[in-house]
Amino acid sequence: MNTAISLSQVRIVLVQTSHPGNLGAVARAMKVMGLTDLVLVDPKCAIDDEARARASGAADVLEKARICASLDEALADTVLAAACTSRRRDLPHPAFTPRQAAPELLATARGGPVAVVFGSETYGLSNEQLMKCRWLLNIPANPDYASLNLGSAVQVLAYELRCTLEDTVLPLPDFDAAPHAAQESLLVEMENVLVEIGFLDPGNPKRLMPRLRRFFARAGLEKEEVAIWRGILNAARVGRAGR
Amino acid sequence: MNTAISLSQVRIVLVQTSHPGNLGAVARAMKVMGLTDLVLVDPKCAIDDEARARASGAADVLEKARICASLDEALADTVLAAACTSRRRDLPHPAFTPRQAAPELLATARGGPVAVVFGSETYGLSNEQLMKCRWLLNIPANPDYASLNLGSAVQVLAYELRCTLEDTVLPLPDFDAAPHAAQESLLVEMENVLVEIGFLDPGNPKRLMPRLRRFFARAGLEKEEVAIWRGILNAARVGRAGR
Repeated sequence: MNTAISLSQVRIVLVQTSHPGNLGAVARAMKVMGLTDLVLVDPKCAIDDEARARASGAADVLEKARICASLDEALADTVLAAACTSRRRDLPHPAFTPRQAAPELLATARGGPVAVVFGSETYGLSNEQLMKCRWLLNIPANPDYASLNLGSAVQVLAYELRCTLEDTVLPLPDFDAAPHAAQESLLVEMENVLVEIGFLDPGNPKRLMPRLRRFFARAGLEKEEVAIWRGILNAARVGRAGR
Repeated sequence: MNTAISLSQVRIVLVQTSHPGNLGAVARAMKVMGLTDLVLVDPKCAIDDEARARASGAADVLEKARICASLDEALADTVLAAACTSRRRDLPHPAFTPRQAAPELLATARGGPVAVVFGSETYGLSNEQLMKCRWLLNIPANPDYASLNLGSAVQVLAYELRCTLEDTVLPLPDFDAAPHAAQESLLVEMENVLVEIGFLDPGNPKRLMPRLRRFFARAGLEKEEVAIWRGILNAARVGRAGR
């Protein structure tokens, strides 16, 4: 899937935001995850120097932001709108976590713009505004202090969208595994050296080699590491006599 | 599972933070997801009025933050440390997304504190600092602008931990992790012994210690294994002379 096209169809709508720093933080939170469409409904502050400072390298998202007088205007062309809010048990709307909602938000975005709406820092969204959205989004939070900063809430939502889109699993780091026989002969040599340097008593080996095998099994062994460990064993065998 | 206890075992470590507002944003990002343990390593700014304003209702997390002179001090009692960083292809450590790492971070946290380390706003983390952590964490981001704000990065990580905790029942791992300080002093002793036995040339160390650190990072180190490796190093040091 084309990440850029899908995410450009997700609109972030901020209603009556009052702190310029939050405008900047939201722009940055969007851009780092690949979102670009920002709409401000009846903003209570200007896009000023503080906003641009907090936006950092995402000032372009701020500059392109559209300003609307009403939520209806901001949502007019959207095909799905979800309101991000603290848990509201008094509203009968369907409520989802970002993780639950992200796949359908993105699937729907193929057919037209979808919006996620965030209320003002102090008052959130009114019931009337909430009812204009099809879904509620509840970000999981500490029940004793669930007050996410506006920029943080947008960050979590945008992150969730990006992860869902990428279904991100990082490739395992390059690992050039040593073949079984090389690992086995290394462990045999290790055992011999541990006997030679007096650490392993062949008459009373206890569980030393099984423990070392467990350690090596957890790490896995690369081809180049075989040479390193053989070098260490050889140096240990020679010991002080070799210096 | 007791959410509060598990999340209180996850430490957020900020290295050389320079903006007070970010200290506050991090405290708030932590508390809204239920994290409380904040450690500042060599901070380049004070916990001032701006920090407290941005912390909002999480000023208590700021007030309880501990200040350490070094990363080693901050990690000393931890049993697992992960460094949050942009994708670094030049480092061979295991790298995961927060979503991949969260289950094991939480499972390991049952055995002792686990840390997630964040570098300074301008310079990130040095190679030396990264190598003290077992894992790298890469937050998925827009490749054209991946510059997450510090507070946003902590928010994403904390959110991921909370979602993971609420969603899953974690099996107890059969792994009794050694604390960071024990692992660090073991690796320092290993380096000394490798010099003594003539395998490591201090004038031309090449990449031997980073490679060994990588090997140990992959394996993880259990408490009992510290004693085994110390015994092996001691025997190697004594070498043939000890027989």
